Amino acid sequence: MSEHHIYKKLEMVGSSKTSIEDAIENALAECHKSVKNMDWFEVVETRGHIVSGKVGHYQVTIKIGFKIEKS
Amino acid sequence: MSEHHIYKKLEMVGSSKTSIEDAIENALAECHKSVKNMDWFEVVETRGHIVSGKVGHYQVTIKIGFKIEKS
Amino acid sequence: MSEHHIYKKLEMVGSSKTSIEDAIENALAECHKSVKNMDWFEVVETRGHIVSGKVGHYQVTIKIGFKIEKS
Amino acid sequence: MSEHHIYKKLEMVGSSKTSIEDAIENALAECHKSVKNMDWFEVVETRGHIVSGKVGHYQVTIKIGFKIEKS
Amino acid sequence: MSEHHIYKKLEMVGSSKTSIEDAIENALAECHKSVKNMDWFEVVETRGHIVSGKVGHYQVTIKIGFKIEKS
Amino acid sequence: MSEHHIYKKLEMVGSSKTSIEDAIENALAECHKSVKNMDWFEVVETRGHIVSGKVGHYQVTIKIGFKIEKS
Amino acid sequence: MSEHHIYKKLEMVGSSKTSIEDAIENALAECHKSVKNMDWFEVVETRGHIVSGKVGHYQVTIKIGFKIEKS
Amino acid sequence: MSEHHIYKKLEMVGSSKTSIEDAIENALAECHKSVKNMDWFEVVETRGHIVSGKVGHYQVTIKIGFKIEKS
Amino acid sequence: MSEHHIYKKLEMVGSSKTSIEDAIENALAECHKSVKNMDWFEVVETRGHIVSGKVGHYQVTIKIGFKIEKS
Amino acid sequence: MSEHHIYKKLEMVGSSKTSIEDAIENALAECHKSVKNMDWFEVVETRGHIVSGKVGHYQVTIKIGFKIEKS
Amino acid sequence: MSEHHIYKKLEMVGSSKTSIEDAIENALAECHKSVKNMDWFEVVETRGHIVSGKVGHYQVTIKIGFKIEKS
Amino acid sequence: MSEHHIYKKLEMVGSSKTSIEDAIENALAECHKSVKNMDWFEVVETRGHIVSGKVGHYQVTIKIGFKIEKS
Repeated sequence: MSEHHIYKKLEMVGSSKTSIEDAIENALAECHKSVKNMDWFEVVETRGHIVSGKVGHYQVTIKIGFKIEKS
Repeated sequence: MSEHHIYKKLEMVGSSKTSIEDAIENALAECHKSVKNMDWFEVVETRGHIVSGKVGHYQVTIKIGFKIEKS
Repeated sequence: MSEHHIYKKLEMVGSSKTSIEDAIENALAECHKSVKNMDWFEVVETRGHIVSGKVGHYQVTIKIGFKIEKS
Repeated sequence: MSEHHIYKKLEMVGSSKTSIEDAIENALAECHKSVKNMDWFEVVETRGHIVSGKVGHYQVTIKIGFKIEKS
Repeated sequence: MSEHHIYKKLEMVGSSKTSIEDAIENALAECHKSVKNMDWFEVVETRGHIVSGKVGHYQVTIKIGFKIEKS
Repeated sequence: MSEHHIYKKLEMVGSSKTSIEDAIENALAECHKSVKNMDWFEVVETRGHIVSGKVGHYQVTIKIGFKIEKS
Repeated sequence: MSEHHIYKKLEMVGSSKTSIEDAIENALAECHKSVKNMDWFEVVETRGHIVSGKVGHYQVTIKIGFKIEKS
Repeated sequence: MSEHHIYKKLEMVGSSKTSIEDAIENALAECHKSVKNMDWFEVVETRGHIVSGKVGHYQVTIKIGFKIEKS
Repeated sequence: MSEHHIYKKLEMVGSSKTSIEDAIENALAECHKSVKNMDWFEVVETRGHIVSGKVGHYQVTIKIGFKIEKS
Repeated sequence: MSEHHIYKKLEMVGSSKTSIEDAIENALAECHKSVKNMDWFEVVETRGHIVSGKVGHYQVTIKIGFKIEKS
Repeated sequence: MSEHHIYKKLEMVGSSKTSIEDAIENALAECHKSVKNMDWFEVVETRGHIVSGKVGHYQVTIKIGFKIEKS
Repeated sequence: MSEHHIYKKLEMVGSSKTSIEDAIENALAECHKSVKNMDWFEVVETRGHIVSGKVGHYQVTIKIGFKIEKS
């Protein structure tokens, strides 16, 4: 029986008009379509573009870690 | 006709009693009074001061990029 | 009379199911039980674990600064 | 209608005998074979190996961001 | 004939109960199942979880570089 | 019932004549005397002093995270 | 007579369709319109956007230092 | 009544033949001529040039934060 | 007989109206009241607040390392 | 027979009036006069001084790695 | 009598087929042939090349500090 | 006639019982014995050891740049 796990990390950018948290959730939701066993995320960068002097979209870069199912 | 753009970046600190997003919006609103064509922002640092064991103000340092109108 | 202050900094990780701000407040509330004169915080890292493709908990590492009462 | 976009970032190393710019273009050209909607790149590291006291190849590590087509 | 190479980098986390080196080897072994021409690795982070006051598993994040076979 | 946890992080330096892993274990063993619920560690710095051209001691700085028991 | 100098640093982003060097020159040329005594620059970030699988524009962020004329 | 403040940060380099502290004071004195409400500074870099094997001038780069008076 | 040592590191901020060195000494003096065997310090950050265009206080963040007496 | 190699790294600054690549080549050419078996370089910093609003010289700091011939 | 010491730091890369510690020792052993009074080392980077899906050599970059004998 | 210069950088640690500036001067004085054309220095790290609750020696790591005389 295997006693250790291997993880892979992907880097994604989620965006949202409303909040940093929502941008993170949007990235996770998209990634979840193809990666079923996501474990954790790390925020790498928070930025956004500006429209008419206000935040247009928050753009949050995250790394997503997930366990690799052993073949 | 010019085929490239030049941008300038300013560093500002916005504060807010309610949220990190609101602190960012406050910095943008103030900057918008004198800079009309802001394009993007990057969060540099998030901190705050504490009052009675709770967050008093969030203080978010951002860099703001805007296009320079060519003379 | 002393003309300068000395501060100590602690590193804590607060977590929350709802938001980054709430994770910060949770860390401050716990620290406030033993440290009465907290002055400021600095966000060091923002991450979280993922449950069923959504954020399970935000985990925000902060440094908390507080003034040392001189003996 | 969706109001936000999700991006993925890949990390690649392009090389070239002639210039840093050519190394970047080489990495983009290779990535373009499988990723059609590349949006931006960020230079992460510039290095190279040396042959007979001259630059043999420039090796430029870049991150490439591209929009994920929603299913 | 092509005179330059393109590489891709993946980020993985290997774990091991015994050593940092073994955690690296475990990540490489897993990656080797699908990527045949791995060239080099770079250690990005070393951490671990603790069980009963001792290291439970070392968790070593590495970036793995491999040459892309040109189509 | 509480739905979130708070962690504290300490910074320690373990040393060992034999290996990096042993230096980590030594720091954990010492910390375990006063902190019973250590959860994870992060390697911050690896260095050492040199005696007669060989490693005298490895000195490994780690951060140790542990859950705070709520009062 | 003053025996020391004071400098100010601005952060700008130059862009170019052709090269990193040209992007730097473009930023300097624009800045030169209002700042006459620029002394040095430091490259902070190199990135670009991608059009049809090729570099569309290089975008190079630089800091520009210039001596302040004393009043 | 406004409940929050906005700050701007400038980056300057002060120099001095005598000390790091004097270089900081020189930068502040120059900036004070045009900015009246400076609040804090952060040392970003300390360097200098060398004359005849001794420090010619200390060159200290600082960021200066000041409150923006709301219009 | 034990052949290795364990150290703990604390993070403190010393302040002084006169110099960076004095701010460091002030932090050490305060820490010395409760920690008797301090071994070394590392400067982490140097900043200060400004009063009337001059340095009000230097604020120097240091990490202090000290040997743990084994029980 | 020895199964491993040892490398030494030097830090140099090359300059050029024309390009970043030329500055790198200039540093390599100078180093090549005394070091015959240079293997690789890493760009550490890119900067330059400005003359009349244009780049006077590019100044590129590189680390140069070379194999040590065993005695 | 002199009351202070001066140190120089060299940057070297040691390699080993077996472990990170062995790579460090190999670098120290080579350096020891010409530098007799090495005092400490700091690990700067840990990487390696891969052969047949396993670690071929660990390559550990270290800085080595040694006291300068005063003339 | 050559139109560009090449510089080499050395890393040294100066120490002093009195101040950070004196530690820098001590490193420069020692280096000056063998390197005659030192041009600039950059402070890399400031630390020290502690004796009886006070600073024993400041230890300042600097990089020293000097022009290479062309052969």
